[in-house]
Amino acid sequence: MRYAALGGGKRIRPLLCHAAGAAVDAPAKVLSAIGAAVEMIHAYSLVHDDLPAMDDDVLRRGRPTVHVQYDEATAILVGDALQAQAFMVLSQLPLPAERRIALVRELAATAGSQNLVGGQAIDLQSIGACLSRDQLEQMHRMKTGALIRAAVRMGALGVVAETPEAARLYGALDSYAAAIGLGFQVIDDILDASGDTATLGKTAGKDARSDKPTYVSLLGLDAARALSRTLGGHAHAALEPLGPRGSMLKHLADLIIHRAK
Amino acid sequence: MRYAALGGGKRIRPLLCHAAGAAVDAPAKVLSAIGAAVEMIHAYSLVHDDLPAMDDDVLRRGRPTVHVQYDEATAILVGDALQAQAFMVLSQLPLPAERRIALVRELAATAGSQNLVGGQAIDLQSIGACLSRDQLEQMHRMKTGALIRAAVRMGALGVVAETPEAARLYGALDSYAAAIGLGFQVIDDILDASGDTATLGKTAGKDARSDKPTYVSLLGLDAARALSRTLGGHAHAALEPLGPRGSMLKHLADLIIHRAK
Repeated sequence: MRYAALGGGKRIRPLLCHAAGAAVDAPAKVLSAIGAAVEMIHAYSLVHDDLPAMDDDVLRRGRPTVHVQYDEATAILVGDALQAQAFMVLSQLPLPAERRIALVRELAATAGSQNLVGGQAIDLQSIGACLSRDQLEQMHRMKTGALIRAAVRMGALGVVAETPEAARLYGALDSYAAAIGLGFQVIDDILDASGDTATLGKTAGKDARSDKPTYVSLLGLDAARALSRTLGGHAHAALEPLGPRGSMLKHLADLIIHRAK
Repeated sequence: MRYAALGGGKRIRPLLCHAAGAAVDAPAKVLSAIGAAVEMIHAYSLVHDDLPAMDDDVLRRGRPTVHVQYDEATAILVGDALQAQAFMVLSQLPLPAERRIALVRELAATAGSQNLVGGQAIDLQSIGACLSRDQLEQMHRMKTGALIRAAVRMGALGVVAETPEAARLYGALDSYAAAIGLGFQVIDDILDASGDTATLGKTAGKDARSDKPTYVSLLGLDAARALSRTLGGHAHAALEPLGPRGSMLKHLADLIIHRAK
């Protein structure tokens, strides 16, 4: 579990959680715990996605994947236990029970068959298939976008009660998160097509070899790059209602859109 | 997910949840939902345990296991999504947030590395090893006993607040659950050694073939049977403080100890 969860990674989801929480004055200590729970779900999903029966990958974050370093049974169990641990962390937060249960519901809805796991199932079924742009977007919204969106929403959920002002704030954060969630995936596809394995820390060129539909295969490299910039613009625009409090989130959007790995 | 969770099974954990909840006047509707959450964790753990990289079994509840009926990737994802769904169900119960979060914490602690998943990891490592009786009991307490115990505790947790009277009640229910949790496993070992595949609905004689330590291999069949009766007696004795309210739980203890599959 430590090898999978503490072995590097960009920590984009915890950073987003911190930035969204800071914009609504949530205490940093609580945000670290919420971010850790989100990252545990992310880490578990990578461990299971890398399994031979799934994407069959041997390299992750510049190191052997869990089933290569240990064995398949351990990798399955590590993922299972990380998922349980994420809910354990949320249940023990120093927050009112009402806030904690809202966080549990958000993470459970994100991790389940309607989002993360369902998106991975569609991904596996779509190998060799020709997806429309809408279908591709739907898959990524479930598989990647939902957890990025949850990281942002959960940063705010820790402290914000259900008021009209909170609803307006959520709306802004949610639009921002939807744009960067999709932008993140478009960049992922671009890097897989144009990056190298050493920089990425994971196997490059894998999508094309496994005949997976991507934004690059669908739109071409140039149009995919243009789309990522458009989405970065949407993310900035969505933050307008937050004023100067949105500056850290804007900075993270730029990091995500301009990242090289 | 439906194939794995709704495809038969004895439903012992939901029954225990209902019986424990009825003893403290919890509404049946809430108990059904709590029992469903516990059963989803149980169903997911069976799906993953049956995988080729784990116990590699082809038969479960009289039908092909999930990875045989579908494929390995689907079986991994089905288990993952069932776990998330269990927490989703608890987060949406019509109970005060304080009660819901107590249930989430109980289930997360039970499902994670300290219990269910940790017990399965020890089980896999113990193949061909010689465990002491204490080690065997520790493994089963984590792998099987903890979720049976959680089913009982969670039935009461839905309505009982943290009072001295509740603590006394929990103590009784918990002693009961510890006894039947272990008794359940002893009977499982006996049935694996002496039952037939058609009756069990899963492959019989599997423990001996895979060289797994069991109560039968450790104590012999007769002593294992005597142990199961002793544990049944402990379960009955533990319920004394509940008076007539413990009658359904006593009946379930008898069903568990005298079951033929």
